[in-house]
Amino acid sequence: MGEKFISERNLRFLLYEVFDAVSLTRYPYYADHSREMFDMVLETAMRIGKDMLYPTLGEMDKNPPELAGDHVKVHPVVRTFMRECGEGGWISAIAPMERGGQQLPSIVNFVPNGIFAAANYSASVYLLLTSEASHLIESFGSDELKETFIPRMFSGEWQGTMALTEPQAGSSLADIATVAEPTDEGYYRMRGQKIFISGSDHDGVDNVVNLMLARIKGAPAGVRGISLFVVPKKRVGENGELVFNDINVTGLYHKLGYRGCPINQLSMGEADDCRGYLVGEPHKGLAYMFQMMNAARLAIGLGAAAIASAAYYASLEYSQVRLQGRRMTEKDPATPQIPIIEHADVKRMLLFQRSVVEGSLSLIAQCYQYSDLAIVSEGDEKERYSLLLDLLTPVAKSYPSEMSILSVSQGLQILGGYGYCDEFPLEQYYRDTRIHPIHEGTTGIHGTTLLGRNVTMKDGRALQLFLEEVQKTIGAAEALDELKPSAQKLRDALEKLQGVTAHLLDIAKEGNREVFLADATLYLELFGIITIAWQWLLQAVPVQKALRNTDGLSETDVAFYHGKMYTFRYFFGYELPKADGLIRRLMETDGLTVEMKAAYFSD
Amino acid sequence: MGEKFISERNLRFLLYEVFDAVSLTRYPYYADHSREMFDMVLETAMRIGKDMLYPTLGEMDKNPPELAGDHVKVHPVVRTFMRECGEGGWISAIAPMERGGQQLPSIVNFVPNGIFAAANYSASVYLLLTSEASHLIESFGSDELKETFIPRMFSGEWQGTMALTEPQAGSSLADIATVAEPTDEGYYRMRGQKIFISGSDHDGVDNVVNLMLARIKGAPAGVRGISLFVVPKKRVGENGELVFNDINVTGLYHKLGYRGCPINQLSMGEADDCRGYLVGEPHKGLAYMFQMMNAARLAIGLGAAAIASAAYYASLEYSQVRLQGRRMTEKDPATPQIPIIEHADVKRMLLFQRSVVEGSLSLIAQCYQYSDLAIVSEGDEKERYSLLLDLLTPVAKSYPSEMSILSVSQGLQILGGYGYCDEFPLEQYYRDTRIHPIHEGTTGIHGTTLLGRNVTMKDGRALQLFLEEVQKTIGAAEALDELKPSAQKLRDALEKLQGVTAHLLDIAKEGNREVFLADATLYLELFGIITIAWQWLLQAVPVQKALRNTDGLSETDVAFYHGKMYTFRYFFGYELPKADGLIRRLMETDGLTVEMKAAYFSD
Repeated sequence: MGEKFISERNLRFLLYEVFDAVSLTRYPYYADHSREMFDMVLETAMRIGKDMLYPTLGEMDKNPPELAGDHVKVHPVVRTFMRECGEGGWISAIAPMERGGQQLPSIVNFVPNGIFAAANYSASVYLLLTSEASHLIESFGSDELKETFIPRMFSGEWQGTMALTEPQAGSSLADIATVAEPTDEGYYRMRGQKIFISGSDHDGVDNVVNLMLARIKGAPAGVRGISLFVVPKKRVGENGELVFNDINVTGLYHKLGYRGCPINQLSMGEADDCRGYLVGEPHKGLAYMFQMMNAARLAIGLGAAAIASAAYYASLEYSQVRLQGRRMTEKDPATPQIPIIEHADVKRMLLFQRSVVEGSLSLIAQCYQYSDLAIVSEGDEKERYSLLLDLLTPVAKSYPSEMSILSVSQGLQILGGYGYCDEFPLEQYYRDTRIHPIHEGTTGIHGTTLLGRNVTMKDGRALQLFLEEVQKTIGAAEALDELKPSAQKLRDALEKLQGVTAHLLDIAKEGNREVFLADATLYLELFGIITIAWQWLLQAVPVQKALRNTDGLSETDVAFYHGKMYTFRYFFGYELPKADGLIRRLMETDGLTVEMKAAYFSD
Repeated sequence: MGEKFISERNLRFLLYEVFDAVSLTRYPYYADHSREMFDMVLETAMRIGKDMLYPTLGEMDKNPPELAGDHVKVHPVVRTFMRECGEGGWISAIAPMERGGQQLPSIVNFVPNGIFAAANYSASVYLLLTSEASHLIESFGSDELKETFIPRMFSGEWQGTMALTEPQAGSSLADIATVAEPTDEGYYRMRGQKIFISGSDHDGVDNVVNLMLARIKGAPAGVRGISLFVVPKKRVGENGELVFNDINVTGLYHKLGYRGCPINQLSMGEADDCRGYLVGEPHKGLAYMFQMMNAARLAIGLGAAAIASAAYYASLEYSQVRLQGRRMTEKDPATPQIPIIEHADVKRMLLFQRSVVEGSLSLIAQCYQYSDLAIVSEGDEKERYSLLLDLLTPVAKSYPSEMSILSVSQGLQILGGYGYCDEFPLEQYYRDTRIHPIHEGTTGIHGTTLLGRNVTMKDGRALQLFLEEVQKTIGAAEALDELKPSAQKLRDALEKLQGVTAHLLDIAKEGNREVFLADATLYLELFGIITIAWQWLLQAVPVQKALRNTDGLSETDVAFYHGKMYTFRYFFGYELPKADGLIRRLMETDGLTVEMKAAYFSD
């Protein structure tokens, strides 16, 4: 197993050369930070990734969580890591200082999260869930809830989770049936079942704090009757002692990958003694939960890109040392074999991997930048960044998730038969990353969100803002001769995207919503390709500028910038053209999949 | 776990309605056969698949082969199945009657092989390897070799293998280093290492017969110095007893999937007592081996399509019973949920799966038909069918192999979280089918074979014959109004394929072979999409004819034909347009991946 799982150089490039994270420190909210601080975050996170997380990657896969009596046993590194996350302030990183947080910009917090996920995705989830759950309590919970739960979550002693899915309600949250019965004592009595809840019971922490959707007894049907509750595994008794809160683990899933983190089935209230604490107002639970869901979606996009990164470096290293074959121009079989990285087809596969990894990371950083700017802006500006973030969240979740699978698979292919065997980590990455298009909303759900909601929200203003953002980048690229042809290609693609969108919205206007949304997944795919092309053009601008005068640059920096340029060219040459077929299909809306009867699948 | 893994109806459709397998019985070589016989083959194979193979699918995955002292222990069903294969004549099915075979057309033998692979891919490999290895001995071996080995292989007592790969020679067969030293006693003394050899040691048989490539001491370097040997695990002693032949299993690979079949590392001649028996003439080994390799390549295409078939039916069944969500037009959350197959996006995913499965099966059947016709034809006709088979083999291997991964992944997606867990077989299929683009030549190798060798062989005659075949189908489809628009689409795509081919051959003429072949993998992908579109149009012709008058057809038959039409339309609507992006890329040859320096991947 190799050494490298993510490129520090690339993280610095995104932070400082593309998104100028330091400029955020001009705003009072982030004024206590500095580039030195950001560098320290990166370096410390790399140390944790290298020394603690990456070495246990394979072990955690081979020794998955087990049910030990009434609780779930996980790898001991989970406890060590969670304590480290508490002490190092990783869980509270983006929380406001007045709440004990670090008030770090999200675009900087993106760095440790990306590093941890690349080193060991399963391990990183414990941190992410706790951080996101504490943020949800912080945003909408009462002072009592905040005081009771947040400090122990920030310290890494207590795990946070998001508990949405139920046996009869997977993608259909409207059908959530867990019941919360009001009592006179301020709490609710919870009864129900949850399935597929990541990290919802384990011995790496002292308690688990589930952020749970449920229906207050008598609430209206559908999403309008869903409320949000804090339902801890152990509640705090009158004297501060921890009391079992009648949540039982009724099952542990045996998963294809992502095995370092338990996914449990929970049963609440078997002894009629499960207490839940309402967050915010009744029936507004889904709206609150969207904060955590949207944060989790970006984190999942990042996790997918991070696994693809680790796979890329594993393939790259193999391709540099594995000797096989000769140049096609070499006819003498007695000459020595060459490293396979010298074969054009292998370089093509590596470029595909790299283009997915670095394109995805850039898009996710872009989203975090919008998120930070939304925090520090006011009025129109605030709305602008919020809308851009909202519009792009399904794309930033789904493109990396879907493409990570293909990218890791290509990486496995580079190793040939060895890629298929567990001596190398590729087969694990291949299994691990398959979760991403499923959890936090399937790709189908995100397609419907993007086309059915986001492109039309606020009369299409979010889409308009997105087009402006892309055009701004095209403008900047056109000022550089080397980038002009690519800028033109992106301009063409963007126009076609507008054409497709208009065509589909016409169908919506005709009133056939099912036909309108039938190919929403393809629309999302198209949107993803164009968005990533934009991110590559955005990266190419500082790269070209740097390459104009390489005096004073180190050799590795020059190689890095050249590599960036080739990967950029690869994306425009090989990936962007995939938009063509999608556009053709999307313009030919014929309702095929709506019209076909289920019975025709009979044989 | 469901019941169905393959559609008998579809197999009959291909055999009788598309490829008219019965017409082969007009040739003397196949005259002893009949439709009744073919039906019996299908029914018996389905029984074995259902009763013996499918029930052990999960068990064999969960209890993979282990090294037990000096041999490999496999699931007991392997022995039962191999004996059944012997008794039922499955191993000898296509062998000539004069050799104890059944002289069955390959297009009919395709049926049991497809059924067994869909029921349990790992199990099917034991049969296939033995059948293919015995065929190789039968074609090129001496009478003594034939008499010694073939009967025990046909009976399923002895396993056949193909032993090519070595640590330093994966895709590069020119670098094979296993040495065969001649002796005065008619045999060769073998010394060397082989890796990744499927089925090369196990206790489901009494002996293993390795068909091994090696280099006779002093042979020229490169592929011109490779010879073919029979190297059994146990050789036959003077009194007919079995004597250990100094082949040691030095390792067993732990694989992502395909776990029911051991893949071993072998060491020959550690005690200097490993005997090999030359097949045919010295230094012609690779040419002989290509017979087995090409047969194995079609079998792998079939195996990939078969796993995709099993995955398709598992997803289909789930989608029919899993209730989730409501029609998009239904606003009342109190109405009952619907089966997910009613959602257009789920139908789209199922259609994708079905289009890959049935399109691939059709192409493989087509190849077997060419193979049968080559056997019974003479002169130009024989060459014609041989060239078509040769041209299409890399396509019939690679399209199903690559697309099976995507198709199974889509099937897993339909099950959401459940698809990721081992309660359902999707996660196993996802692991199992990942082997296919790797073994028997990676996809990259097949791209180079297609573009670098096949399209130009015999002055481009094979390609010309292929174009004629497709045009014949287009002509037949154009006679049916309903198929005219699709026929035109295929005509356009075919013209573009010719344009791309001409463009690439121009580059070859300019002498830059590396640039010419840099995107050969993409060329193969393009060729695959167009070839499968052709096979869908070919299927649509009898389907349309059947739908013109449905009187007298059963309801299930009518549903089957309608399902075929929708899947055909799906392929032309959603899959064929993917050619656009590939064409755009292939026409823009810029040598990007040739030109980029390996050092630019440094960070």
